[in-house]
Amino acid sequence: MNLFEKHQPTLTKAIEALHARTFFAAFPENPAPATYGETADADGQAKFRASLNKKFEELKQTSAEGWAGQEESPYLQEALNISYPTFSTASLVSKSKTAFHQWRKVSAKDRAGILMESLERIKSRFFEVAYATMHTTGQGYMMAFQASGPHAADRALEAIAAGYEELNRFPEKVLWDKPMGKFNIQLNKEWRAVPKGISVVIGCSTFPTWNSVTGIYGSLMTGNSVIVKPHPGAILPIAIFVAEIQKVLEENKLDVNICQLAADTFDKMITKELAEHPDVKLIDFTGNSAFGSYLEGLPGKTVFTEKTGVNSVILDSAEDIDKVAANLAFSVNLYSGQMCTAPQNFYIPAKGIETPNGTISFDQFAEKFVGNLNGLIDNPKAGPFVLGAVQNKKTNERVIEAEKLPGKVWLKSRAFENPMFKNARLATPVVVEVDSSKKEIFSKELFGPIALLIKTKDTDESIALAQEMAMQHGAISCGAYTTNSIVKEKIADEMALAATPVSFNLTGGIYMNQNAAFSDFHVTGGNPSGNASFTNPEYVTKRFTWVGHREPVKN
Amino acid sequence: MNLFEKHQPTLTKAIEALHARTFFAAFPENPAPATYGETADADGQAKFRASLNKKFEELKQTSAEGWAGQEESPYLQEALNISYPTFSTASLVSKSKTAFHQWRKVSAKDRAGILMESLERIKSRFFEVAYATMHTTGQGYMMAFQASGPHAADRALEAIAAGYEELNRFPEKVLWDKPMGKFNIQLNKEWRAVPKGISVVIGCSTFPTWNSVTGIYGSLMTGNSVIVKPHPGAILPIAIFVAEIQKVLEENKLDVNICQLAADTFDKMITKELAEHPDVKLIDFTGNSAFGSYLEGLPGKTVFTEKTGVNSVILDSAEDIDKVAANLAFSVNLYSGQMCTAPQNFYIPAKGIETPNGTISFDQFAEKFVGNLNGLIDNPKAGPFVLGAVQNKKTNERVIEAEKLPGKVWLKSRAFENPMFKNARLATPVVVEVDSSKKEIFSKELFGPIALLIKTKDTDESIALAQEMAMQHGAISCGAYTTNSIVKEKIADEMALAATPVSFNLTGGIYMNQNAAFSDFHVTGGNPSGNASFTNPEYVTKRFTWVGHREPVKN
Repeated sequence: MNLFEKHQPTLTKAIEALHARTFFAAFPENPAPATYGETADADGQAKFRASLNKKFEELKQTSAEGWAGQEESPYLQEALNISYPTFSTASLVSKSKTAFHQWRKVSAKDRAGILMESLERIKSRFFEVAYATMHTTGQGYMMAFQASGPHAADRALEAIAAGYEELNRFPEKVLWDKPMGKFNIQLNKEWRAVPKGISVVIGCSTFPTWNSVTGIYGSLMTGNSVIVKPHPGAILPIAIFVAEIQKVLEENKLDVNICQLAADTFDKMITKELAEHPDVKLIDFTGNSAFGSYLEGLPGKTVFTEKTGVNSVILDSAEDIDKVAANLAFSVNLYSGQMCTAPQNFYIPAKGIETPNGTISFDQFAEKFVGNLNGLIDNPKAGPFVLGAVQNKKTNERVIEAEKLPGKVWLKSRAFENPMFKNARLATPVVVEVDSSKKEIFSKELFGPIALLIKTKDTDESIALAQEMAMQHGAISCGAYTTNSIVKEKIADEMALAATPVSFNLTGGIYMNQNAAFSDFHVTGGNPSGNASFTNPEYVTKRFTWVGHREPVKN
Repeated sequence: MNLFEKHQPTLTKAIEALHARTFFAAFPENPAPATYGETADADGQAKFRASLNKKFEELKQTSAEGWAGQEESPYLQEALNISYPTFSTASLVSKSKTAFHQWRKVSAKDRAGILMESLERIKSRFFEVAYATMHTTGQGYMMAFQASGPHAADRALEAIAAGYEELNRFPEKVLWDKPMGKFNIQLNKEWRAVPKGISVVIGCSTFPTWNSVTGIYGSLMTGNSVIVKPHPGAILPIAIFVAEIQKVLEENKLDVNICQLAADTFDKMITKELAEHPDVKLIDFTGNSAFGSYLEGLPGKTVFTEKTGVNSVILDSAEDIDKVAANLAFSVNLYSGQMCTAPQNFYIPAKGIETPNGTISFDQFAEKFVGNLNGLIDNPKAGPFVLGAVQNKKTNERVIEAEKLPGKVWLKSRAFENPMFKNARLATPVVVEVDSSKKEIFSKELFGPIALLIKTKDTDESIALAQEMAMQHGAISCGAYTTNSIVKEKIADEMALAATPVSFNLTGGIYMNQNAAFSDFHVTGGNPSGNASFTNPEYVTKRFTWVGHREPVKN
């Protein structure tokens, strides 16, 4: 049985799920021993520990020009001392070009089989990837496991499924038979899905696999060769993915340079060199807006970006305001606000929030919100795990700066210790009240656990501001609370015009930060937060070109 | 019966055809009385004549700020003296914005019904459109009828079908039901296809309807309002389309400004003003590369271009060299080389072209080619009709300049009279021999009836040059003649990498200039000739954004 046949049942289900958009997951998100095995967690942790202070020698790439690595654990504030092979841009591109001409001729079925096999191999390393993710990004254990393991693998599978479907959208060959009256013109026609060429996938420091695998698998599925350029602060998680892809390529007698790792260091970044190389045709990027916009402006490239945004929460009315405050407090605490989907601007009408038990004033809501933030932080069974650690020390500086904003500080970032990691870099949320007239304060992303409570005239102003922020500065998510169906439709319509998905009335164990493969598109491509959307058809169709040839039928 | 139900059978067939890519046409291309009626031609001609020297008052747009028009017939070299209402950019955009918010809320079914109804109305005006096209573009009668009438309507239908299918690609609503072990998380999810906004479609002087209707109908189908900015030299044909669209909108009690005509004049072009207006989100353009590239570089816009290219013919070997020469001579003579798909660079190996009857030398082929060009020109039943007239006098200047190129002139442009139109602006082809080393001569589009016979070392060099021209300067079509299956696959593969469709071994009544709706993609989007492809899914999906909202199910 070849790899395509082996994985075909899952691929078929994945393609169906892409259309149905009901719940589907191929990789279990629960790290329970019953699912992944009794010793899986301990084994993964041991493998991670064993990789520290060493060369990462799993890659099949050869002729390294050097070895380097500058990762540091946000939990330990110590260097991991893992070094990766380094290569010049010229060498990476030259190898990628050779590999491209082999890979583009591999059938879509074989590509799908090989790529799905690599995901199955990676599945057995989810715990190792989880610890690698914790100690590069600062994510809590559960998020590190889910986001970098099963959720990333599901997003990768989604990209494979979308690519496979699009490659099969048009027939390989047809007879075109045109009646002309007394005779017919008959042409044999054929269509080729021609990959664009070399694809560079640029990773970020907070979600090193989840935000990169869609580009990697999307490009590979559609026949492009890929150079993976991780963030120098978070290499190991994605290096494990690349190593497993290379192993499956090698087993199938293919050029391992079809997917290369291009690790670099903070003092010698090769991202611009790679991106600007004329042979590089596709670029995927997750990160800051300035660099993302620079990449989008490069001529002759197809660029997919996920940049920054200003995510809003519109509070109008609610069934149960305590559950609302609890839900939103969790969203802000989760991974210390370091998610691209975390809420920042909370719009609350000056006259308060209507509930079945009367109006909750602005101040009452602020108190409830702060109370819930503190309650979660101070819960020893939850706080340290939900908050995780802070990837970049600039985030801590930003949190301290936020306390100086002109407005009432409802909550200051405060001393907090993770009992398991006494030296962890931490930041509890800061909450500041801002008047809706002070737009300059809340018209930008303040990355990290920073919540602005913005007092508006009324919900119409809240909606207008949320829409304006999304249209002008981008937005990846939006939360809204209303019990009024007319207000709800207005929010749905106005935010849709700003290309921002809205989570309405979330309470309990589901948060506006989260989104699900095969159902929720991630980033819409319709506002300044980025032009990519996982995994919308365009995300894969832009990676290849349909070319049709034709010839008269021989009589 | 509503309009959607009325047109649903055709829409269903069109969507099937989009996938099957076998022959399909909804609008008959044969202007025979049996198809369109005994008096259709004469009536159309009379209607065209009646429109001369008048205001074009069919549009439902109101509050014209002026009336202007500078069209001239290439057949008569006289002004048509038709004037169109003119509007300021501010007025056009303001009306379009208001109309957008009405149109975007019309269902995809109703939009499809209305748009298909407009095409049916236009069908009854195909002859009038044909004469309008002749006397603005210089096309011959048959091309003017087919390209501006049935072929354009088929391309428009194709865009409607592609848009309708994509709008229905994802469900409007689903229940997302995720098992969490002891309980399920249930969310109601919904997806909205949100149109981008105001769409400006910029026409060209040679194919005023065929090259514009895909953008117009593609944008309208996906819920955008459209401003049609024709070339000031070719307004009438597309004005008739817009008038019919507006009539159907009005009958359905919709804002006629959903589709506006924005005519201008050579001395006061409003194209840049429109394109740069911040409320304009979508731009379709057919025309020169400089302006197309400027448009592609405008930030924050989704731009679809068809620009110039250098189309090649690779001559390696042939079954019947006389049929080859005849076919290519027709391709060059057709509409005096003013098609974006017309061949320009003919690569012929120095050692000649192999045939079953021996090798045909470079010079022998040149003689046959010139002989066929002259034979067709001098055939009074064919020449004047195939050549048509020249839209822009700069084309005549370019033909004369081409005779001064450094190389043997195999054929000079010569005196030629169209017996029906003694004052027509004409240009017969010029044929010049160029050595393959003189790349600077053939590395650009020489628009018009200019053929360069390029002597190459061998077919490998021919292929390399054709690929290089396409990759560096764009190409929309390519012809190739070979009886060798290995050479054929090499051409197919190398030109596919340059995103150029190849017509192999065409002889008889089918030409590399022609392409068919529902089967041949027009422009691939993969080389510098443009980023648009009729009608590939991206051509419609980029006109809207998928936005998903969600809310917990109420228990």
